[in-house]
Amino acid sequence: MVESPQSQNALSPDELHEAWAVLSADERLEGFRLLPPAVADDFFLGLTAREQGELILSLPPGERRTWVRLLPPDDLADLVQAVEPEQVDAILSQLDDASRREVNVLLAYSEDDAGGLMNPRFARVRPDMSIDEAIGYLRKQAREKVETVYYAYVLDAEQRLQGVLSLRQLFQAAPDKRVADVMIRDVITVAENTDQEAVSRTFSEHSFMAMPVVDEQRRMKGIVTVDDIVDVVQEEATEDIQKVGGMEALDAPYFDVGFMAMLKKRAGWLMVLFLGEMLTATAMGYFEHEIARAVVLSLFIPLIISSGGNSGSQATTLIIRSLALSEMRLKDWWRVARRELTTGLALGGVLGAVGFLRVIAWQALFHSYGDHALLIGMTVGVSLVGVVIFGTLSGSMLPFILRRVGFDPASASAPFVATLVDVSGLVIYFTAASLFLRGTLL
Amino acid sequence: MVESPQSQNALSPDELHEAWAVLSADERLEGFRLLPPAVADDFFLGLTAREQGELILSLPPGERRTWVRLLPPDDLADLVQAVEPEQVDAILSQLDDASRREVNVLLAYSEDDAGGLMNPRFARVRPDMSIDEAIGYLRKQAREKVETVYYAYVLDAEQRLQGVLSLRQLFQAAPDKRVADVMIRDVITVAENTDQEAVSRTFSEHSFMAMPVVDEQRRMKGIVTVDDIVDVVQEEATEDIQKVGGMEALDAPYFDVGFMAMLKKRAGWLMVLFLGEMLTATAMGYFEHEIARAVVLSLFIPLIISSGGNSGSQATTLIIRSLALSEMRLKDWWRVARRELTTGLALGGVLGAVGFLRVIAWQALFHSYGDHALLIGMTVGVSLVGVVIFGTLSGSMLPFILRRVGFDPASASAPFVATLVDVSGLVIYFTAASLFLRGTLL
Repeated sequence: MVESPQSQNALSPDELHEAWAVLSADERLEGFRLLPPAVADDFFLGLTAREQGELILSLPPGERRTWVRLLPPDDLADLVQAVEPEQVDAILSQLDDASRREVNVLLAYSEDDAGGLMNPRFARVRPDMSIDEAIGYLRKQAREKVETVYYAYVLDAEQRLQGVLSLRQLFQAAPDKRVADVMIRDVITVAENTDQEAVSRTFSEHSFMAMPVVDEQRRMKGIVTVDDIVDVVQEEATEDIQKVGGMEALDAPYFDVGFMAMLKKRAGWLMVLFLGEMLTATAMGYFEHEIARAVVLSLFIPLIISSGGNSGSQATTLIIRSLALSEMRLKDWWRVARRELTTGLALGGVLGAVGFLRVIAWQALFHSYGDHALLIGMTVGVSLVGVVIFGTLSGSMLPFILRRVGFDPASASAPFVATLVDVSGLVIYFTAASLFLRGTLL
Repeated sequence: MVESPQSQNALSPDELHEAWAVLSADERLEGFRLLPPAVADDFFLGLTAREQGELILSLPPGERRTWVRLLPPDDLADLVQAVEPEQVDAILSQLDDASRREVNVLLAYSEDDAGGLMNPRFARVRPDMSIDEAIGYLRKQAREKVETVYYAYVLDAEQRLQGVLSLRQLFQAAPDKRVADVMIRDVITVAENTDQEAVSRTFSEHSFMAMPVVDEQRRMKGIVTVDDIVDVVQEEATEDIQKVGGMEALDAPYFDVGFMAMLKKRAGWLMVLFLGEMLTATAMGYFEHEIARAVVLSLFIPLIISSGGNSGSQATTLIIRSLALSEMRLKDWWRVARRELTTGLALGGVLGAVGFLRVIAWQALFHSYGDHALLIGMTVGVSLVGVVIFGTLSGSMLPFILRRVGFDPASASAPFVATLVDVSGLVIYFTAASLFLRGTLL
């Protein structure tokens, strides 16, 4: 795409965006400077906080101000948190005093709270204004520094939230009415310290473009806009997917995570799973005599334990996601358990039948399994039914249990369930074997 | 929560929302009717399309009109697609002719395209209007039926998109300027048939509240707003998580999917994995003599193959998500391969060392593994290194290969990678065993 970054041919914004990750700091700066001024603003605003920070710091100090001041306070707070601590002053010194104070207030909130997401600049009107006065006042605010004028928040003298008006309602109202006559008093708000996941849930339950953030005295602190919620939703989904895959959430794009940090995120869970899986060696130890007497039994071990792991992995991801989307609650566990039991029985029945037929077919074709192929086939088939039921049930119940005791259900990762099922799968298999083969092979 | 749905105590909207999934149709209707009128609208708009359809159809025909007409055309189109075909008329007959035509136009688009997401009602102005005329005209449109007045789109006489003005820019501009003087001409648009995933990517690259949808002649058809993108992002993440878990995407909440439909979504992949896993029985068949001579080897089979599966599962989910978020491109595969090779070596080294020590320790404590425990420990340790490297590499490369040949990278699910690694893990293990144990145990 960027065959010769030294060439003077300007890239289109989309091309530059696509190439961004693989460009050096110098190449990024050069590509950015070649953008027409009209599109450079939009391109800059579309970068992540980390990328904005790197780009600004690669500019000579004299050119930084425009770009720093283009960002609203909430995005600046994100940017400040994304750069190295020793670079923070180089950013904040570009701001006027009032804006710097705003950013510093935001920095006091946790990044994952409503307070950390909100923009402190919002459109406000007073309850006793007429509709025409309110529209005129909004026009004035838009000319200054408020970005989002989709809703006008009605505040009393103590900055307490009294009501809200959408711009549409304001436009629709008769010009001689007062704000207090037409405003909606029953405003849905979020508290400063509401977790971002809860904020995004409130957004999806209502269909607002923005929501006000208030403190305990209902004084209004800022607004969270729905475009920030898109990022929250992506972030939370990424965390869940990574946890489901059996690792700690990365919190940053793949190439932005250092080698050692990446190793730590992965080695921890891998080691936990490995230690758990060591129990299989212990379990197998108990069955060593059985294996010595009937080596043929060992052939089906991977097939059987992995089938339990796969069915458990399906069930656990399904339930983890449903819980994350609030499609089900903790109290639905019994409904899920009954359903998964039936599902496990059906799935296990299918796999068990195929497994049984596999043994019989190979015996007919290649005489692979000696005199007792029928009994071996039954052992394999019955074990598969048991293991799949166990996998499905434990995979679906584990997320509920984890949530109940206060952990993230997503920790019931596919590999975690597989490990659990591996150990129990061995016990199920060798129990079935001793039932069917006692007196013949065993 | 709803101990006695027959009681006359009205639930709060939040309580009703929470209980919704477990209420019967009658209970839902009763709860909904007890809501104060001021909050009922908002509550209704926060329901999913399917829930809105069920609620409307449970109302007597005379009461349906208000609720049907509350919905904008794009939400109505979703609702129509969510109800049974024979119920569609009961919904559409509540609309005036113009709105019914709008909904029918939208129904012609695929649900997953920009056309299926868009709202055909948007605020428009003409390039030759003065700023004050434009604001007056917007006020008039807001009074009629346009919902979203955050951007005013500038259209020529053929409805072709000439430019855009945010409300803020409109408010900021000098009243005597003309729209054409201050509008932004370089408008980012999406085509009618752009896939919703691509639309959401365009939203995340820029930071807009809405984007115009145009046809091939650049005639404007509607707008997609960012609040719809939140749903798209959730939906796409859910699909990916379910695929990563080793099943087909469900496309509906858990409890809304019928038993047989659910079985089909899960049995398909489970069977594919099972057939793949059958190769382990074949592979084990080749090593039956080795196992018969050294039963001790069989004890570590589950430990070794699952370690490969776990490391592969981590790698594949990491890469699937990074590809979905466009954090990396197809051409980055080589960079990823080198990095994952090093990561696999490090992770495998750690697990290998622990595995080796486990064998040595158990031998010292319990004399579990006979005369050749040191050699067995080395076999286990070296196999673990090999299997983890293989798992990490194949887990990270498979999503790239799938995307390259045109499949969804998310099909490289954790169980799929685990199955692949199980078969090769056996080969690696028994190869290591024959190297270390030839002439002693084997």
